[in-house]
Amino acid sequence: MDIEAINSLSYEDFVSIFGNVVERCPIITAAVWSGRPFPSGAAIEAAINAFIEALPESGKEGILRCHPDLAGKDLQSGTLTPESREEQGAAGLDRMGAAEVSRLTCLNAEYKARFGFPFVVCARMNDRTSIAEQLRERLGNTQAQERARGVEEVKEICRLRLQRLVLSDAEA
Amino acid sequence: MDIEAINSLSYEDFVSIFGNVVERCPIITAAVWSGRPFPSGAAIEAAINAFIEALPESGKEGILRCHPDLAGKDLQSGTLTPESREEQGAAGLDRMGAAEVSRLTCLNAEYKARFGFPFVVCARMNDRTSIAEQLRERLGNTQAQERARGVEEVKEICRLRLQRLVLSDAEA
Repeated sequence: MDIEAINSLSYEDFVSIFGNVVERCPIITAAVWSGRPFPSGAAIEAAINAFIEALPESGKEGILRCHPDLAGKDLQSGTLTPESREEQGAAGLDRMGAAEVSRLTCLNAEYKARFGFPFVVCARMNDRTSIAEQLRERLGNTQAQERARGVEEVKEICRLRLQRLVLSDAEA
Repeated sequence: MDIEAINSLSYEDFVSIFGNVVERCPIITAAVWSGRPFPSGAAIEAAINAFIEALPESGKEGILRCHPDLAGKDLQSGTLTPESREEQGAAGLDRMGAAEVSRLTCLNAEYKARFGFPFVVCARMNDRTSIAEQLRERLGNTQAQERARGVEEVKEICRLRLQRLVLSDAEA
């Protein structure tokens, strides 16, 4: 979809198409619609990032808490959003043995108990081995470091989700 | 559920139970979890209202845009959230004739075209007649008036949704 077509969307169609670029936070997409017309896809991404950055720390934690665990119960029960299902699949998280799932479940639980939000990482930039390694490493960080790091990962996930929906400026 | 039980919930259970007190905005519930323990149910409501008020105007419009039309296509197609379905049913919006639905659909469309967000009113405090009357009246307001009014209605809807989940301080 090119930027001209995007700028002509009603808020309903805009939210319907872009509502999950930040996982389970359609309010963010719905908010940035107020700032249209966008000169480019990059401008949509910048508006989303600016909205996220302007939130209080609790709001940033709120975004993280809307994310599912990696290889968690939503993957097992088929209740992931389509975007998350694809991303966790691309990282191989849907093809792990029981022991590997169990190890990741324990690490996720430890992370959540320590920080009060889930471990968020851009699954498309990783595989199941590097995800487990990073989870172990990041458990050593402070809560403030992990909140900031989680938000950076959210932005990266958002960037890649947007890329699949918006023609890049070079292609347009 | 009494306040002690609420304060002992993990963020996952808290979001699972309270995530839709603001329609399709689980980020808000997930954010206020950071402020626990809550002395009372009223304190949860106050934290949610404070979070909403601190959002930029685009964020408030974003909340409104996460709301379905009253007697709109989500009601017809069965894709309302359970809370909205109950509320629209309580106001009689699921028992209207085709002509009445058509009139409301036109008014909703006019409202959305004028303001860039949907008409939001607390359905539990109204019936289908008063909803249509208010929609007609509020079409005469400015966008800023309607944004502020819509947010007040969101808070009222939230208050009633919370009441059904939290024992009141008198009952606790």
